[in-house]
Amino acid sequence: MRLVLDAMGGDHAPAAAVEGGVLFAREHPEHEVVLVGDSLRVRTHLPRTGAPGNLHLHHASQVVEMDDSPSAFRRKKDSSLQVGFELVRAGEASALVSAGNSGAVMAGALLVLGRLPGVDRPAIATLFPALRGGGRCLLLDAGANVDCKPVHLAQFAVLGEAYVRARLGISRPRIAVLSNGEEPSKGTVLTREASALLRRSDLAFSGYVEGKDIFSGEVDVVVTDGFTGNIVLKASEGAAMGVAGLLRSAIEKRGGLPEKLGALLLQPTLAGLKRVVDYAEYGGAPLLGIQGVGIVAHGRSSPRAIQSALGAALQMAQAGLQTELTRCIERARAWLPARQRGKRATQGTLSD
Amino acid sequence: MRLVLDAMGGDHAPAAAVEGGVLFAREHPEHEVVLVGDSLRVRTHLPRTGAPGNLHLHHASQVVEMDDSPSAFRRKKDSSLQVGFELVRAGEASALVSAGNSGAVMAGALLVLGRLPGVDRPAIATLFPALRGGGRCLLLDAGANVDCKPVHLAQFAVLGEAYVRARLGISRPRIAVLSNGEEPSKGTVLTREASALLRRSDLAFSGYVEGKDIFSGEVDVVVTDGFTGNIVLKASEGAAMGVAGLLRSAIEKRGGLPEKLGALLLQPTLAGLKRVVDYAEYGGAPLLGIQGVGIVAHGRSSPRAIQSALGAALQMAQAGLQTELTRCIERARAWLPARQRGKRATQGTLSD
Repeated sequence: MRLVLDAMGGDHAPAAAVEGGVLFAREHPEHEVVLVGDSLRVRTHLPRTGAPGNLHLHHASQVVEMDDSPSAFRRKKDSSLQVGFELVRAGEASALVSAGNSGAVMAGALLVLGRLPGVDRPAIATLFPALRGGGRCLLLDAGANVDCKPVHLAQFAVLGEAYVRARLGISRPRIAVLSNGEEPSKGTVLTREASALLRRSDLAFSGYVEGKDIFSGEVDVVVTDGFTGNIVLKASEGAAMGVAGLLRSAIEKRGGLPEKLGALLLQPTLAGLKRVVDYAEYGGAPLLGIQGVGIVAHGRSSPRAIQSALGAALQMAQAGLQTELTRCIERARAWLPARQRGKRATQGTLSD
Repeated sequence: MRLVLDAMGGDHAPAAAVEGGVLFAREHPEHEVVLVGDSLRVRTHLPRTGAPGNLHLHHASQVVEMDDSPSAFRRKKDSSLQVGFELVRAGEASALVSAGNSGAVMAGALLVLGRLPGVDRPAIATLFPALRGGGRCLLLDAGANVDCKPVHLAQFAVLGEAYVRARLGISRPRIAVLSNGEEPSKGTVLTREASALLRRSDLAFSGYVEGKDIFSGEVDVVVTDGFTGNIVLKASEGAAMGVAGLLRSAIEKRGGLPEKLGALLLQPTLAGLKRVVDYAEYGGAPLLGIQGVGIVAHGRSSPRAIQSALGAALQMAQAGLQTELTRCIERARAWLPARQRGKRATQGTLSD
């Protein structure tokens, strides 16, 4: 398989992206990585000992910057993102990974690759770690669509269900709508109407769950609008990293010999914990509902995080997930209403 | 001062409430606690050695259960909540603390005590711990009002600012609106219109912050609607507790001698951490904007958490915070538009 890596995307680009691409290429000599970006700048970060033979360079003169608006994707015709997505569309690569401007990645996926038939709004899907009770949980939308209608949340459920089934091997994933309480009387018009749709579906729908249940292992897929999803993602990341950091600084501050020795003895445990806690960084978040495989990696991705996102892209491309997603969306037409263009029933909808 | 404690509220009521009341009464012999609830059931949980002299019992025959709808407050005329709030209204107590049904506590506060002049919607305010970068952060609304209008978020900012100034001694608290990105183009109609109002205010308004900034120490007050606020509160609680739990189980699972010794040496550090991480449980969340002092404690409150919530109630009542809140809301009329009953611009508003 050949994977495109946006060499210019991310807070530490191109250094971190290039290094991550090298790591992945060495790990998977049977696959190929195409680094897309400013070839002069990319070259300076290649290893002096020579790049792996399965790592290629494809020049693109422009960059969609982290603080550009998503519309910059249209303007910058020779950006690494544009050129990268064109390679995927032309069939010269099977997937694209970018740690760049996530709004622009979504815009590029929509404009160049397009949506799967039956999908109104592709979503960013984030897999949360099993912090309590075991089991991982997929949250979507994690930020692509601020204004959602009930039918969009129902589509997210179909996409998320198929993804979790394929990626985690769960035969019948449990689906829930994120709300401010478990009782059906809670929530907003959006959550109540989305729940009504999902109750009519053939999915294993559990109703509402609360924020803590993203980590409780009780459900496998949680759907929400991109405004709430993005805030929840970043708040829980802040809390998890905060607790881990607090532990570190408490150990350093107390700083007696017992604490130092204790920290030393627990070193492997603490290192393993860091990897789990840093869930936002590792693995990357797939765009579900587009015609192709696109992975958004965290802006601050380290080389290892980039390597891990490329691994997720490879897995998705190999699994032929697109065919499965298309099949599921097609089947959902039995209970999913067609596109509700005229209906305005959800948060922020007036800004449409 | 005399404080009312709802003896029947909470997952572990009346045991945890009574025990917490006893702890507080012993800690503060100069103040009084009135336990309101079923006197027969309450009595069985009083210490055999005799209750402290400053702990009183006030009978109420009914209970608003945790899974009752908030409207149960109206129906149950002799509930511990109703009787407790009546004591505060009659001036026989200065504050009420309850770990019971938070919707019913809010309903009771509104119906019995009423709102401060100029406040349309009282909010539940939750003080988050300093997990990163130092400094604590007040989030409101944490769940009282699912459907908010821009003017409500602006009122939350005024209330939160005055509370943080009084409680944390910060002379000029920094205020922000919670959003899915820092750029002014992000957010929903609700967040954009609330920001426009706050930019016209005399508060130290910082614009948008993301979910992680609740823990970053960059701002002191974060306002949001009660739907988002409740989800964020519970998700970050789940993440923080999850990380702490993961650490525990990692130590137990590896279970070698080095890990056991390490854990033993770090015991005091880990215990201190637990107290901070358990932020949702400790301290209680004040209802800001009501005519009196009302504190919502976490449903699963332990006796120590109840004691801590009574401490917060005492501090609020002593600080004469109501006068300060009234003054601030009055002053804000210079830039705050009057009640926007007719305007429907926010999430979930169609359910009004």
